[in-house]
Amino acid sequence: MIQVPPLSKQALVNAQAKIDSKTKPLGALGVLEPLALQLALITAQRSLRRSVHTSPSQISINKPIMMVFAGDHGINEENLSIAPSAVTKQMVLNFLHGGAAINCFCQSNDIALTVIDCGILQPVSLEEIPKARSDDKHKPEFIELRLGAGTANFSVKRAMTVAQVEQGFVNAQQLVNEQIAQGAEILLLGEMGIANTSSAAALMSALTSLSVEQCVGRGTGISDEQLKRKVSLIEQALSRVSSDSKVLSNSNKNLSSEDVIELLSQFGGFEIVQMVATILAGASASVPVVIDGFIVSVAALVAVRLDNNVADYLIFSHVSQEKAHKTLLAELISAQTFTELDGQALLDLGLRLGEGTGAALALPLIKAAASFYNNMASFESAGVTV
Amino acid sequence: MIQVPPLSKQALVNAQAKIDSKTKPLGALGVLEPLALQLALITAQRSLRRSVHTSPSQISINKPIMMVFAGDHGINEENLSIAPSAVTKQMVLNFLHGGAAINCFCQSNDIALTVIDCGILQPVSLEEIPKARSDDKHKPEFIELRLGAGTANFSVKRAMTVAQVEQGFVNAQQLVNEQIAQGAEILLLGEMGIANTSSAAALMSALTSLSVEQCVGRGTGISDEQLKRKVSLIEQALSRVSSDSKVLSNSNKNLSSEDVIELLSQFGGFEIVQMVATILAGASASVPVVIDGFIVSVAALVAVRLDNNVADYLIFSHVSQEKAHKTLLAELISAQTFTELDGQALLDLGLRLGEGTGAALALPLIKAAASFYNNMASFESAGVTV
Repeated sequence: MIQVPPLSKQALVNAQAKIDSKTKPLGALGVLEPLALQLALITAQRSLRRSVHTSPSQISINKPIMMVFAGDHGINEENLSIAPSAVTKQMVLNFLHGGAAINCFCQSNDIALTVIDCGILQPVSLEEIPKARSDDKHKPEFIELRLGAGTANFSVKRAMTVAQVEQGFVNAQQLVNEQIAQGAEILLLGEMGIANTSSAAALMSALTSLSVEQCVGRGTGISDEQLKRKVSLIEQALSRVSSDSKVLSNSNKNLSSEDVIELLSQFGGFEIVQMVATILAGASASVPVVIDGFIVSVAALVAVRLDNNVADYLIFSHVSQEKAHKTLLAELISAQTFTELDGQALLDLGLRLGEGTGAALALPLIKAAASFYNNMASFESAGVTV
Repeated sequence: MIQVPPLSKQALVNAQAKIDSKTKPLGALGVLEPLALQLALITAQRSLRRSVHTSPSQISINKPIMMVFAGDHGINEENLSIAPSAVTKQMVLNFLHGGAAINCFCQSNDIALTVIDCGILQPVSLEEIPKARSDDKHKPEFIELRLGAGTANFSVKRAMTVAQVEQGFVNAQQLVNEQIAQGAEILLLGEMGIANTSSAAALMSALTSLSVEQCVGRGTGISDEQLKRKVSLIEQALSRVSSDSKVLSNSNKNLSSEDVIELLSQFGGFEIVQMVATILAGASASVPVVIDGFIVSVAALVAVRLDNNVADYLIFSHVSQEKAHKTLLAELISAQTFTELDGQALLDLGLRLGEGTGAALALPLIKAAASFYNNMASFESAGVTV
């Protein structure tokens, strides 16, 4: 399993003093101040680990990369989404052609985009990948890390084998290593997968003390009837697993790594598994990881259950319209030892799209926090006499 | 008085259809969708007025400019702020040297910055203006539009003459004309002025049915005792004016332009007056105006009282920590005929700094709304079958 060191608070006093010396009333930049503190500590830890001779008193979040993980879900044969599973691949192709919301937001905020096929039903063929144009600096990268052709329908059987979960961890660790070797200092995560809110809701319920009903929402917009059916199928899946094993009968908070892996194999999606490992690998490399909406937040919860040290490396970009997201964020934020953080996501825009859109939209705020920390004058240097 | 045409809704049906054809579930981009609609209608109106042959179906918000208006306030002789009035000029110099939060955020979000001395106590001398370096594309522009050397203490007398208010309107109209002639298609407003929350609170109370207590907050962080004194001095000022004239005894919503100008001369600040005129001039030129925190929002309220048509051209960037800001935003949003808007500011980050920081931080969201509207694929063009 990937090891994540606890975030060292060694630089805390100096970083806070630096923030308080800036030419503004104490605390006047609101949530950007604890965010800058978090980024400073993560940067300091990275410098230390790598023995890089960058100033530990500057935040460095160069080369942001958006990684959008796509996968298909067997449970969609139960008609739990507004869309057929074929739409997952259609949207992957839309990403590759630059036509989706996430393309627009990555372009508008200068974020490199990588799309990862984690196991959509039909793989993308070579002819379907658009040719690069020399002037196109925003062309998305496409990577295949397929764990299969869609998961099994987890309402009736295990979504994937434990070996597939483990392969997903190996894949994602390597992916993160490559991105970091290319200079990425902040990772943003997004996803695409028709019906993946069902998988996410099952995992959330299994990993918390919350009922299925509390974890389920309308996804991109299903009807009352579909919602009812979604709850009942997920409850059926949880019963199936709890009658088979002891994983779900224990107190949910003290799960072993093996238990968590078992739950991933029962209810997970190929994209969720590889996001869990990406979050672990990013934190393990002392790189901040920006969490998007409900699905990515569930992947973060799984990562935190595997290693609580992960929590302090996470930045919560937005609270989505998906019903359970607010509760889930509270759970994740309570896992942070970084008590200076304000216990809220950066944005609340009523989004319910996924794809990493909320994370991409929040990046300018994260860069602004870094910018004031790195560049703003102190009272002394500016000759301001407050 | 500057004339503001009502925002034409002629393009509404087509613009909404364009948004609904994008490759995402209906409404999935939350508040960015009505924001895109508003920007599209404002752009369409501008194209029409200027007979410019740009496609009316694209949003155009090029060359964003942040205008920070600075002025001093006589009422600060009553010790109503955490800082002496000298800090206004010190911060203006900090802006010109690039050391303030607003410099960092303008730089990080690629916004040109203009600082306007509207009447700080001591003018900036030529020697105090930093020399331009050839590599410094983020060097702020500095403009002098001084209406005096600080206002009078409005708790005991009129803050400025009506002639000064009128001069402020002439100045700001010319300033906006110049900025627009240079290509600015979106204006962002910020301010600096020690004690200007007092002036703003007095205007807010005078222009609404709210008590002084409801309009007053702690500014950048005053004590309980200062807060009490702030309320009592503003109440004293309102009594002074209502015993002198009939402006305040009328129903507050049906003020004539002359009444509003009278209130500005009684309670205004030089920076507030020129912001009011800038907002009117921007709306009159069919350019969206991004409103920052409490002070700028009060300037927006004054502008809306002068001409209700202004409201539809305003974008509310954030809700600040200043107590009355939320109420004020509700008042302003209720003045919009643009019912598609969601009745909330874009950001809620706990800021209480001013300088235009909230407006600068919100610009990437506004650009993202424009980007998805202009560039995102339709279901048809992307071959997505939802």
